[in-house]
Amino acid sequence: MPEFLELLPPPDALKVLLSHIIPEPQTEQIETTAALGRVTAFSVNAPYSLPTFPRSTVDGYAVRAADTFGASDSLPAYLTLVGEVPMGAPAGLSLTAGQCALIHTGGMLPDRADAVVMVEYSQSARPAEVEVLRAAAPGENVLKVGEDVVAGQEVIPAGVRLRPPEIGGLMALGLNRVSVARRPRVGLLSSGDEVVPPEVELGLGQVRDVNSYSLGALIEQAGGIPVRYGILPDHSEALRVAAARALGDCDVVIITAGSSASSRDLTAAVIDSLGRPGVLVHGVDVRPGKPTILAVCDGKAVIGLPGNPVSALVIAGLFVVPVLRILLGLQAGRPTPRLSACLTTNLPSQAGREDWVAVRLQESPQGYLAEPVFGKSNLIFTLARADGMVRIPPEATGLEAGQVVEVYLS
Amino acid sequence: MPEFLELLPPPDALKVLLSHIIPEPQTEQIETTAALGRVTAFSVNAPYSLPTFPRSTVDGYAVRAADTFGASDSLPAYLTLVGEVPMGAPAGLSLTAGQCALIHTGGMLPDRADAVVMVEYSQSARPAEVEVLRAAAPGENVLKVGEDVVAGQEVIPAGVRLRPPEIGGLMALGLNRVSVARRPRVGLLSSGDEVVPPEVELGLGQVRDVNSYSLGALIEQAGGIPVRYGILPDHSEALRVAAARALGDCDVVIITAGSSASSRDLTAAVIDSLGRPGVLVHGVDVRPGKPTILAVCDGKAVIGLPGNPVSALVIAGLFVVPVLRILLGLQAGRPTPRLSACLTTNLPSQAGREDWVAVRLQESPQGYLAEPVFGKSNLIFTLARADGMVRIPPEATGLEAGQVVEVYLS
Repeated sequence: MPEFLELLPPPDALKVLLSHIIPEPQTEQIETTAALGRVTAFSVNAPYSLPTFPRSTVDGYAVRAADTFGASDSLPAYLTLVGEVPMGAPAGLSLTAGQCALIHTGGMLPDRADAVVMVEYSQSARPAEVEVLRAAAPGENVLKVGEDVVAGQEVIPAGVRLRPPEIGGLMALGLNRVSVARRPRVGLLSSGDEVVPPEVELGLGQVRDVNSYSLGALIEQAGGIPVRYGILPDHSEALRVAAARALGDCDVVIITAGSSASSRDLTAAVIDSLGRPGVLVHGVDVRPGKPTILAVCDGKAVIGLPGNPVSALVIAGLFVVPVLRILLGLQAGRPTPRLSACLTTNLPSQAGREDWVAVRLQESPQGYLAEPVFGKSNLIFTLARADGMVRIPPEATGLEAGQVVEVYLS
Repeated sequence: MPEFLELLPPPDALKVLLSHIIPEPQTEQIETTAALGRVTAFSVNAPYSLPTFPRSTVDGYAVRAADTFGASDSLPAYLTLVGEVPMGAPAGLSLTAGQCALIHTGGMLPDRADAVVMVEYSQSARPAEVEVLRAAAPGENVLKVGEDVVAGQEVIPAGVRLRPPEIGGLMALGLNRVSVARRPRVGLLSSGDEVVPPEVELGLGQVRDVNSYSLGALIEQAGGIPVRYGILPDHSEALRVAAARALGDCDVVIITAGSSASSRDLTAAVIDSLGRPGVLVHGVDVRPGKPTILAVCDGKAVIGLPGNPVSALVIAGLFVVPVLRILLGLQAGRPTPRLSACLTTNLPSQAGREDWVAVRLQESPQGYLAEPVFGKSNLIFTLARADGMVRIPPEATGLEAGQVVEVYLS
């Protein structure tokens, strides 16, 4: 696994990585009230139709539509009022020709009623008599049985991230438990002799571990569980033992290397020793993040990220998040939230390499403006000052001021 | 509070509502590792500068830049190698004229060094002598103290939702606790004699409570805590007692009315009795969701939502989410995720009224296509089948097929 012999473009590198992963889909059944953001393990089929009974969508009179044909302000249809439909109970009524029943929105249609006349289009001069001033078509102001969903119909496919409407839909069907993909566990190891935990006083020459936490938050956001294994010295055996333990416990392992080339080489050698086939890609044609290591060890993704916090987050977005999507069984369907914006300055870039640039968005009368936030990839606050990232594709030699770009929101 | 005497456009209605709310900002200090998605209560200032020491960004030789001026392949600068900078410790070295030190990426610059020459631009024929093949400018390949943040600088403003970069940035500064806005509690009451809890067997004429759960999920997504008070009968006193209890316990109260006009009137009367000034808006010029009730009772927002699940979610997005943003102290800055898409069919609409239409997105070579998902506002699965919503502004009489629209992702 020599570094940088061949730099793969990010999409090709991802394809290589994903092709070697052997996902072991594991599911769990949880309360629907706790399922927001979780991913369906199986498709959900309606146990019965919704609505379960024909319902009125307005306040008015349930009628047999034919009895109202031809009715108008000047020539009302005179119907006999035979009762009122109770809310939350069977209608308990059946209409014969010339009859109607008072009904409220959401009430159940009486037997043989097939339409509802809105109360606004009726009047009543005598008790037990209703004058209908407008004809109703059969089915008018009525929700039919199964108009929302039909018994047996697939209502939520497998691999869908549950949003508020799906949570409501499951409850409408009485499904207060739902099978979802287990959240993948992602082991996080930091290496580098200069890296110390956040809680200690910094000595000269030391920096705090940022990546275990920024990456942990990204993993959480993507639906995984971050498991932190702490900071390992730049020492092959210590790193190997910790990584092997993480690989045993987790579904994915991420090692952020120290900043120096020797620390990265050591990380690559350790990863390669963890299982078959080992390191697949060492070096990706992207900035920031060139010294990325992609490996699969015995079916599980092991990813070596550059130690620079900006590079680590960008690369995790490109490779770790897609791996989590595969492990969660997420369908490709849903689009990534992004915004179109107008670039404020030229962004040069090297042809053949994919670049990601942090931008800050500003509203203007013409729409959003995207202003690059320049900063070296060692500077975490570059990203904290940005709203999202812009991709400069490899075929471009840069982007021009005034160009409309897609901003991927972070 | 007569219904529908004057229908306010949604933005005006929101303005009225927000102008009466008296937010009581409450904060709590939590672990930074648990703070993803939370909103900063105060601005965060850097306790010291980052980096805390001058760092090399490459592997190479720390030099005094002036010693390399004029160096080239044919005329190298010859420097004396005086040592190696250890990682994670003070450099422990000071350079005088003509000296250099081996340094690794992330290592601390020796005293009086002001640049680093990349190892690629050096060679070494004799021990303790380094030939530098290219001139280095002062500051080249060096991160200066404070280049990321300067001591005392505001690094995260108040009212910002914390994302992975901010979590990492806080940890970089050793701030492993952070003050955030307390999550607002939102009381949820469902009324309607036809509504039953999701876990019971449905009788004829009954429907399950959907709104307590779909709205609960929306509230969670927006950063609030849903508190469910169950289903109340269409009975004034029972509803009033439960609503008063919810108002005492929570920061916001939502009552979803039963579907009928009488149930909505009862809800409005109950809300108006809860505190001053009471109902502010009864009826909003929007579809779905016209029979919305907006009230403020003793400083707290109380919102009466239509019982139809689609209306309830749309209106909660328009009014409840902005209230939560105010209570969280969220700055207006961050843009709402949305996508541009090309509408596939004409969408008629009534001039003067704001309409929201559910759409499904499909990718095409020309970009996203937005296909309306038609369905009455009683049908929750209309939203489950959709990727987002399109707004038809009040001044339009509809949107045309082929028009580019903004899709707000749900």
